[in-house]
Amino acid sequence: MTTQTMVYPEYYTETIHGKHEYLDLGHFEFEMGASLPNAKLAYKTHGRLNAAKDNAILFPHMYSGTPLAMERFIGEGRPLDPDKYFIILPGQFGNGFSSSPSNTPPPSDRGAFPQVTIGDDVRAQHLLVTETFGIEKLQLVLGWSMGAEQTYEWAVRYPDMVLRAIPFAGTAKTTPHDWLFVRMHENVIKADPAWRGGFYDDPAEVRAGLKAHAEVWSVMGVTQQFYKNEDWREVGFSSLDDFMRNLWEAWFIPMDPNNLLTMAWKWRHGDVSKHAGGDLAAALGRIKAKTFVTPFAGDMFFPVSDLEDEQALIPDSELRVIDSTWGHFAMFAMTDRDREAIDTVIGDLLATKIAT
Amino acid sequence: MTTQTMVYPEYYTETIHGKHEYLDLGHFEFEMGASLPNAKLAYKTHGRLNAAKDNAILFPHMYSGTPLAMERFIGEGRPLDPDKYFIILPGQFGNGFSSSPSNTPPPSDRGAFPQVTIGDDVRAQHLLVTETFGIEKLQLVLGWSMGAEQTYEWAVRYPDMVLRAIPFAGTAKTTPHDWLFVRMHENVIKADPAWRGGFYDDPAEVRAGLKAHAEVWSVMGVTQQFYKNEDWREVGFSSLDDFMRNLWEAWFIPMDPNNLLTMAWKWRHGDVSKHAGGDLAAALGRIKAKTFVTPFAGDMFFPVSDLEDEQALIPDSELRVIDSTWGHFAMFAMTDRDREAIDTVIGDLLATKIAT
Repeated sequence: MTTQTMVYPEYYTETIHGKHEYLDLGHFEFEMGASLPNAKLAYKTHGRLNAAKDNAILFPHMYSGTPLAMERFIGEGRPLDPDKYFIILPGQFGNGFSSSPSNTPPPSDRGAFPQVTIGDDVRAQHLLVTETFGIEKLQLVLGWSMGAEQTYEWAVRYPDMVLRAIPFAGTAKTTPHDWLFVRMHENVIKADPAWRGGFYDDPAEVRAGLKAHAEVWSVMGVTQQFYKNEDWREVGFSSLDDFMRNLWEAWFIPMDPNNLLTMAWKWRHGDVSKHAGGDLAAALGRIKAKTFVTPFAGDMFFPVSDLEDEQALIPDSELRVIDSTWGHFAMFAMTDRDREAIDTVIGDLLATKIAT
Repeated sequence: MTTQTMVYPEYYTETIHGKHEYLDLGHFEFEMGASLPNAKLAYKTHGRLNAAKDNAILFPHMYSGTPLAMERFIGEGRPLDPDKYFIILPGQFGNGFSSSPSNTPPPSDRGAFPQVTIGDDVRAQHLLVTETFGIEKLQLVLGWSMGAEQTYEWAVRYPDMVLRAIPFAGTAKTTPHDWLFVRMHENVIKADPAWRGGFYDDPAEVRAGLKAHAEVWSVMGVTQQFYKNEDWREVGFSSLDDFMRNLWEAWFIPMDPNNLLTMAWKWRHGDVSKHAGGDLAAALGRIKAKTFVTPFAGDMFFPVSDLEDEQALIPDSELRVIDSTWGHFAMFAMTDRDREAIDTVIGDLLATKIAT
């Protein structure tokens, strides 16, 4: 056995994440002022765009994810049915496939990668949707956590294009507590001396920081009750240590620290009120989509009350709370129960007729 | 201005914390197997022990505290009235006044200080109460957080001595989630290379770790709603940054990292079920004290449901939930509202007649 086999395998590969398509964004200017000369947007699609181009759904992904994580909600006979819909899964900047610290050449590599916003993701996705595919209206935009931030950004920025929206477990404007939480999980990575301001040679060098980052997520990611009930048993883990290692660490440690930091900074600065001079009510008031705001009970970053506050500002909206001891991670859909609850929300909204 | 005036002043001084008394514990054996040749228990008292020795109250303190933190609940005309009661405020091991990494000479100094348990604290306090003061029964044992752990340990270990008990925002047996939380805040200190396995020369060297530790507490210590409401304004902070620096950092950064780690390890391993072969119901079933189990709504380390689960196992008990956006830190009593709510619980229990 060589040393190589003892470390996590290379993570950002199509072997692990599946085949992507790439949109060449050319010289792309980010909202914070920097630009990349050859930016790219990685994405996947499922199903076929019909001739009327009116069967498209957009499903951006969460922090630390790739489109792969959203594919678990797509399937024949399920609400996101590729026989019926053309489902676009865009990769966010920083995910390791779209332009990211880990795949961008100097001078914008690693610790020099620019700050990116949710608005940048959505503008790139808008190019994909309109120019690549010629789509004028999306039947549904949905997403979990940072995917919810992108969903809100779509619904506020392009209100005439989004017929339906489901932000799961995420906010239109990052709350102060969420901001503090995200900054904390950035800081535990940066506290690792091996991070070196982002200029490490190999992500594996920053393993201590990545482990600390996984630890933060283990504390905040699922509910207190989850651990007390030992609900990890239900999904096949044999001990708390097994769960810590083979869920949290196995998920986060193979990743690139700078990629995570790029996404985290973006998350923390999510705020659709920027489109209305800081007035969140005015920004959310622009949404024309029929919207199901869907918190997960017991979510420590996105408490039900925070989502309820925003839902109250969205004209044609409902609050749909999903009860799960998995808290924020209900959308990992580790149990049939969680997967079915999420499918029900998606199915109910897609069944709603929209006057266009 | 010299460099010296630019750092936090020396923290573990009677100038800051007030005058203590000291019980010489001699050669004291800890439950985990280590011992100290000249252990000491620092404490304060308020009021006078009466001739019958039946007016004593014991009020141990929380993580990162000293008896000073409990004095804010003592006052003439208040439930903890020194004109009526003899109130003993013991310092826990690791608090910087009782035997601690910061005040113990080699070979048990700093990173070599032994692991200490809640049971060790309570055994030392029992010597103080019985041998120093000759007290046979305590009218009330109460405490917040780690003080609640000590309260439970007293009520289970010495059920005939404790007439009344109030565990505020703490558990008899550390829950798995709380265990993970505490380990996380230990680990962010240890991640600072300057910690050097505990063998730093000056706590100020570990400032980055202490700052990270303060950051963890800022995320978990008060509720999400607290930050959203900007409730820090009510108590005189002018901005979120002001609150972060001048509450969280000002509180935690002057402390000794090894002292914090000693208390944290002790917290994490709190478990009265050890007295009944691991059977928590049997252990709590031994409690004879009239007990008010008092969670703070929205407390992220000690959710109401966790305290409710334990309360259900205590024979003569009630659940008294205190509602505050301060969450776990309601017991900082930064608002009159919180102080009065806590005083009400104490007053109500002290007014209850106990058949002795």
